Amino acid sequence: MNSELCDRLGIEFPLFAFTHCRDVVAEVTNAGGFGVLGAVGLTPESLEIEMDWIDKKVRGKPYGIDLLIPNKMEDKSGALTDDQLREQIPAGHRKFVEDLLDRHGIDSSDLWRGGYDGRSSDNMREAGALKLIDVAFKHPIKLFVNALGVPPKSVMDRARKKGIMVGALTGAREHAVQHAQAGVDILVAAGGEAGGHCGEIATMVLIPEVLQAIEPYKNIYVLAAGGIATGRQMAACMAMGAAGAWTGSVWLTTTEAETTPTVKEKMLKATSRNTVRSRSRTGKPTRQLQSAWSDAWGTKDAPDPLPMPLQGLLSRPPFAKVDKLAAGGHSGAKELAAYFVGQAVGLMNAEQSARSVVMDFKRDYAEAVERLSATLAD
Amino acid sequence: MNSELCDRLGIEFPLFAFTHCRDVVAEVTNAGGFGVLGAVGLTPESLEIEMDWIDKKVRGKPYGIDLLIPNKMEDKSGALTDDQLREQIPAGHRKFVEDLLDRHGIDSSDLWRGGYDGRSSDNMREAGALKLIDVAFKHPIKLFVNALGVPPKSVMDRARKKGIMVGALTGAREHAVQHAQAGVDILVAAGGEAGGHCGEIATMVLIPEVLQAIEPYKNIYVLAAGGIATGRQMAACMAMGAAGAWTGSVWLTTTEAETTPTVKEKMLKATSRNTVRSRSRTGKPTRQLQSAWSDAWGTKDAPDPLPMPLQGLLSRPPFAKVDKLAAGGHSGAKELAAYFVGQAVGLMNAEQSARSVVMDFKRDYAEAVERLSATLAD
Repeated sequence: MNSELCDRLGIEFPLFAFTHCRDVVAEVTNAGGFGVLGAVGLTPESLEIEMDWIDKKVRGKPYGIDLLIPNKMEDKSGALTDDQLREQIPAGHRKFVEDLLDRHGIDSSDLWRGGYDGRSSDNMREAGALKLIDVAFKHPIKLFVNALGVPPKSVMDRARKKGIMVGALTGAREHAVQHAQAGVDILVAAGGEAGGHCGEIATMVLIPEVLQAIEPYKNIYVLAAGGIATGRQMAACMAMGAAGAWTGSVWLTTTEAETTPTVKEKMLKATSRNTVRSRSRTGKPTRQLQSAWSDAWGTKDAPDPLPMPLQGLLSRPPFAKVDKLAAGGHSGAKELAAYFVGQAVGLMNAEQSARSVVMDFKRDYAEAVERLSATLAD
Repeated sequence: MNSELCDRLGIEFPLFAFTHCRDVVAEVTNAGGFGVLGAVGLTPESLEIEMDWIDKKVRGKPYGIDLLIPNKMEDKSGALTDDQLREQIPAGHRKFVEDLLDRHGIDSSDLWRGGYDGRSSDNMREAGALKLIDVAFKHPIKLFVNALGVPPKSVMDRARKKGIMVGALTGAREHAVQHAQAGVDILVAAGGEAGGHCGEIATMVLIPEVLQAIEPYKNIYVLAAGGIATGRQMAACMAMGAAGAWTGSVWLTTTEAETTPTVKEKMLKATSRNTVRSRSRTGKPTRQLQSAWSDAWGTKDAPDPLPMPLQGLLSRPPFAKVDKLAAGGHSGAKELAAYFVGQAVGLMNAEQSARSVVMDFKRDYAEAVERLSATLAD
């Protein structure tokens, strides 16, 4: 493809795949796209193992790393441990979750005993994130992306010295300008139809609005995100001036994905109307599969979700338990099971390999270019 | 342009302009697009006058008419008059509106005495709408669109006999399929970023999803709507397979538009984040400028908006009074003033003539085609 960004990154096709699954990273990169490993859930040790594995698979082909350092957090300093933070969770919130599980036939008596806590929140504090960056920057990555807010200046400087491009996610024009002023190389402009943390402006409006707003800043590439699961949508965004597409949801139903079978099945059946934007999972608005969990938090009697990171500490144990039980066929757990996904879920109707998703994107992209060109052909 | 739909309608460029302003209809049609007059607010007599005027201006060039016959209404039968319906409005709702106006320094004592009622709801009942259709079908229109729900079969049959294409608006795949089964010629698929009545699925996802869903039905053209105010967005939608773009918001800030100066100024200053989707104006969710009105109805203490058409009967008098006072410079009225508009308002930054909007669309469209083609050029 004729693309400055492709040339700079050494890729064939500017399709960026955000995923927590190393297999997807490697498959997309090897198929000519650009895999980005979401590393917030990993310890420095496990990140080292994942990246070693990826390095062997991609043999010099480019890939990237994504972290999540929010601007506002209840405890940004990192002075409090997760256990200390957990003490701030009101009893009424715990009770609400316990009752919800009980109503779905799930024993909640062992929920808060630590067995379901999962990963720590350390990676979402600057100190923890920096440890991951130390690991990541030893590997031949070509891109580092911060998913919430402007990346710290020290990190940007280190990246630049190593020739690593720096990206940031944004859901609003105002934030895009802040990121541009901070000097990012790549802006991922994510519409409200995106899975996970998202704003309210639709991709169709956000892309031209962001491009217009950052016009005074040179050498910034805008990737379109939010709702994109096909090559024709990627072409649409590039017709508007985006340099490529940043995708997440579409990889969740690939054969390689780490998605649980219950959630994968829900996603394959879902239409675009089966997602909901809710603060019930992390404390900030995230788009996710509608489920008995989001329904319950959406009722008038539900408590207000807690600020980040408290709501995450509250929701992780029940989801860990729900996933485990759903895998065993527990019907109540299946009703509660859910995961982050965008409205593009309505376009994801069959499980396929990550490589074949990339191939479909390329073919569909070419057809869209052809279709549009034909409207003005002589 | 190479377009089957353009050929069928006898137009140059498949840009459809929905507007309540006859000047915009004529200007867009004369500039090579397709003007569509929103007629729900007119009496049969005034529609006759408007269409006579348009006929003279466009001299045989094609244009269309849009009505709004909802599927579900409190009183679909038309047995009750507006006055009888008004009696169903709870006193608490009136009180809430009175208090809101009082807080903004507006005397509400004459609000319900009939002077601010404006048009009747007759046109939103089938009998009233049919009177308008009788008028419209005597004129050389090429398209009739129903903005809410499937058009009545009798109307579709009459249209077909006269060679008038029939269209319907839809915000969800499921409704698109119903419309296709009912035999519409044109589906306007409107994303949640659209102004006025809208669903929740973003244009970027809705267009490919609707196209996929109606694949079994032949000879249906899908127009993309929601968020489109530029030629590059129109090109984006057509790259995904849409046959053209249906636009509304972008005409509200043209020199010809009927928009009040206060609201026009708000729109020109607004970013995409200054709209809100709220039931506060008609009873169904509509996207509109955020204002003191939508803020008030969004608070926890606000009553639930009434079903259509009651909420419209409740909100029309205060808005009529607000518009009148805002025109005189009343500051409280200016805070309350608002109108339906989509997120595309963030891209509408200068007042310009309707003709020059069409010209900008054409140039921008061509540039987008060029930009996209260049990515795959040899």
